[in-house]
Amino acid sequence: MDILARDPARTRYEALAASLRRAIENGTYRKGRRLPSVRELKERHGVGTTTVLEALRLLEREGLVSARLRSGYVACAAAGAPPPPRPIAALQTRETQKNALIAAILTSSREPNVIPLGCAYPEPSFYPTHRLRLGMALLARRTPDIIARRSHTPGTPGLRREIARHMQQWGGELSPEEIIVTTGGRESLQLGLMLACKPGDSVLVESPCYFGLLQLIELLRLRVVEVPADPRDGIDVELVSKAIEKWPVRACVITSVASNPSGGTLPAAVKARLAATLRRRNVLLIEDYVYGDLAFAGSPPPCALALDPMLDAIICGSFNKTLAPGLRVGWVASKSHSQDLVRLKSRMSDASPLLIEQTIADFLESGRYARHLRALRAKLRENASRMVELVQRSFPAGTQIALPTGGYVSWVTLPRDVDAQQLYDRCYARRITTAPGTIFCSDQRFDNALRLNFGIRWTARLEGAVRTVGRLAQEMIERSTP
Amino acid sequence: MDILARDPARTRYEALAASLRRAIENGTYRKGRRLPSVRELKERHGVGTTTVLEALRLLEREGLVSARLRSGYVACAAAGAPPPPRPIAALQTRETQKNALIAAILTSSREPNVIPLGCAYPEPSFYPTHRLRLGMALLARRTPDIIARRSHTPGTPGLRREIARHMQQWGGELSPEEIIVTTGGRESLQLGLMLACKPGDSVLVESPCYFGLLQLIELLRLRVVEVPADPRDGIDVELVSKAIEKWPVRACVITSVASNPSGGTLPAAVKARLAATLRRRNVLLIEDYVYGDLAFAGSPPPCALALDPMLDAIICGSFNKTLAPGLRVGWVASKSHSQDLVRLKSRMSDASPLLIEQTIADFLESGRYARHLRALRAKLRENASRMVELVQRSFPAGTQIALPTGGYVSWVTLPRDVDAQQLYDRCYARRITTAPGTIFCSDQRFDNALRLNFGIRWTARLEGAVRTVGRLAQEMIERSTP
Repeated sequence: MDILARDPARTRYEALAASLRRAIENGTYRKGRRLPSVRELKERHGVGTTTVLEALRLLEREGLVSARLRSGYVACAAAGAPPPPRPIAALQTRETQKNALIAAILTSSREPNVIPLGCAYPEPSFYPTHRLRLGMALLARRTPDIIARRSHTPGTPGLRREIARHMQQWGGELSPEEIIVTTGGRESLQLGLMLACKPGDSVLVESPCYFGLLQLIELLRLRVVEVPADPRDGIDVELVSKAIEKWPVRACVITSVASNPSGGTLPAAVKARLAATLRRRNVLLIEDYVYGDLAFAGSPPPCALALDPMLDAIICGSFNKTLAPGLRVGWVASKSHSQDLVRLKSRMSDASPLLIEQTIADFLESGRYARHLRALRAKLRENASRMVELVQRSFPAGTQIALPTGGYVSWVTLPRDVDAQQLYDRCYARRITTAPGTIFCSDQRFDNALRLNFGIRWTARLEGAVRTVGRLAQEMIERSTP
Repeated sequence: MDILARDPARTRYEALAASLRRAIENGTYRKGRRLPSVRELKERHGVGTTTVLEALRLLEREGLVSARLRSGYVACAAAGAPPPPRPIAALQTRETQKNALIAAILTSSREPNVIPLGCAYPEPSFYPTHRLRLGMALLARRTPDIIARRSHTPGTPGLRREIARHMQQWGGELSPEEIIVTTGGRESLQLGLMLACKPGDSVLVESPCYFGLLQLIELLRLRVVEVPADPRDGIDVELVSKAIEKWPVRACVITSVASNPSGGTLPAAVKARLAATLRRRNVLLIEDYVYGDLAFAGSPPPCALALDPMLDAIICGSFNKTLAPGLRVGWVASKSHSQDLVRLKSRMSDASPLLIEQTIADFLESGRYARHLRALRAKLRENASRMVELVQRSFPAGTQIALPTGGYVSWVTLPRDVDAQQLYDRCYARRITTAPGTIFCSDQRFDNALRLNFGIRWTARLEGAVRTVGRLAQEMIERSTP
């Protein structure tokens, strides 16, 4: 039980706020219209002054009312106006369900004898575990006290040097001093959001987007503005521009290569327009490049900092997807904010284990990482083609699958009347998991979509599982059309 | 550069708030007295409405003013009243200095050829690195894909089982399901604070306290209430009770065994009274027990959950201080909040590397951890006696040193006129670091105290360094008394 929930005042003020919110959104109080006075609200709802003021302040933070000293509170949003950025937590019941669903999918995908199409990691056999183990053993033998010595934020210099060298392929001319080692993409994103936003601020994301990003936004008490992104054409920059004009957006997060879940890569021209727009408006760009090394084209569009070194931007990378999911090492880099990121990270958490940082640094330095990536990309690219072909062949008419540009997930849009969450349940009953689209947004817009993992060794059993998902979807359509 | 600092409105409203705060605190506006109207404030300070309202809201959150609808804002705190809980960040200049000082001390203590009396980790040779390395190598050979497989929050079952077994010595009857693996004390504390508090809430801490806790409170936009704690008698429960009556305290953090920096252990009777007080007031107890395994008495007072299993409490433990600073594994446990903690942690960061979790689990299971702890405690206890004796012999008259009850730091209070920060500078010029008392509180109360690390192999060089610190302090006294 959340201890806040036990505080009865909190529940009352949230209930009052919800009631007023509905009244504003359905037009009961139009823009500029005065709300009932504090005294009236107290009497009408049988609550105390504190509760009323708390509720009004909550709505004020949401931009729905504004205080006029000496004349009480007035409504801000006209009925029918586009909805304001959402504090995800305000959609409580639904969000709680989504978070529970995410936990269920992750857990079920790890069960033995399950075909984990809902998982977002390639299988262990795709990684150079033997070589890494030998490297680690050698290192520990040569430096016995490495287990007792700490690495310190921003991370060991050797690893940061190797990362800087590696990032040159991304077009990013970053120095080792501008790189901060983290435990992976999630921590990198968290640092970027904490850097740019205070509670109540808005974050612009592409939609669909990584569910962990939505969870972070919720956790940090921020609001989300979801702008549609097409797997092929990228995010709609016009809409980004409009959203920034309208709402207090502080940061924009884009997974620019092989986005999870869409599999799309932001075209360089669109990225340049996006960067220019954000720059004009002083919005921090958080470029999530964790799948950059898994771009099938080999050389993905350069990172935004390559297009514009003066851009107010940070970039996130990771070895968790590309080298060793079990080692938990990623990074965040920035020209203008590296010192702030170091300060934030060092107050929030400790550095990664030194033994692990150094093992990865050695692996990069030896040239083995580059060779491993070439092999991994080839394998994933082949699986991607097979997955696309198989879905096109065995899913219901009207299904669309985006051509993955990298990584190991593909985004499937089913006919409108297939509920992907129900489909998940039916698949799971047959020991197959999928990731329903609903977890990749804060509303219902992707209820008929699903993400399928192809980072799995291609076997007849896997093919059978994909076919089963398609057949079950077909059955759902047939049942719903009498 | 912090991108928030570039927002000019922010700086102006904080300046206005500071000016009003001074006027309230120096009695210009007594309790109940109306503040100037928004219009007057705008004109007087040449700022906009938003700036004025932001400033007033900030003061309102600090409890210094309260809004009366239709009659503007009135002052709340009478001149001479005890100061309200502090948002640490409001003391900006000073805090920035303190954080810079902390960073400088940590960095300087890691330099080669420095005697790191200011450090808060024992030296690598005190840890069983050889055994851990062999255990890790064996594990990686037997389970080759452990490098590619992830652990998942709340951590691998094997490790949580071993931790539960180990915690029985602390009197804590916690099941493995109630334990969440973290990267160490800092993350555990962060989870506890995020569980109990929302921005603006107050946290009660013992004073002096671990600087990382103050940094976390600042980072999470919380306020701190510092209650004096004596190294021998523990925290003043009467003052705790008064503070909770007066301020909206949501959590109380206590390092109950061998506290950093004081070296004191909270007596069981005081802990029981503290727990009863917190329970009456519905305040979450966050018991930091990370030095529990290093109590010189062998069996420290049982943790609070042992005194009262129904207590609203969480407990933090760690292997970073006791087994391997380089592996970064700790935990947090709770009877009533474990599910909330899992949810929080899984949204915020990833689990620790599986290889490392399992290596530690194996080390505990083999009985080696218990044997290692006996040897480590004996070594630290001997060093503690030596350090106390040496300080008593070689520091200026009037110096007090608390008898450490465990761990590896001792708390030294110098005569009033010695500035420990100046002393740090003089010591560092001689390649010796200390940790000045100023970093362990949010104000000046410990400006003449310092923390000395005795987790260092005892040599003539170490003895010489401690004597040098005493001699430099003596010189500072002699210079200041003409």
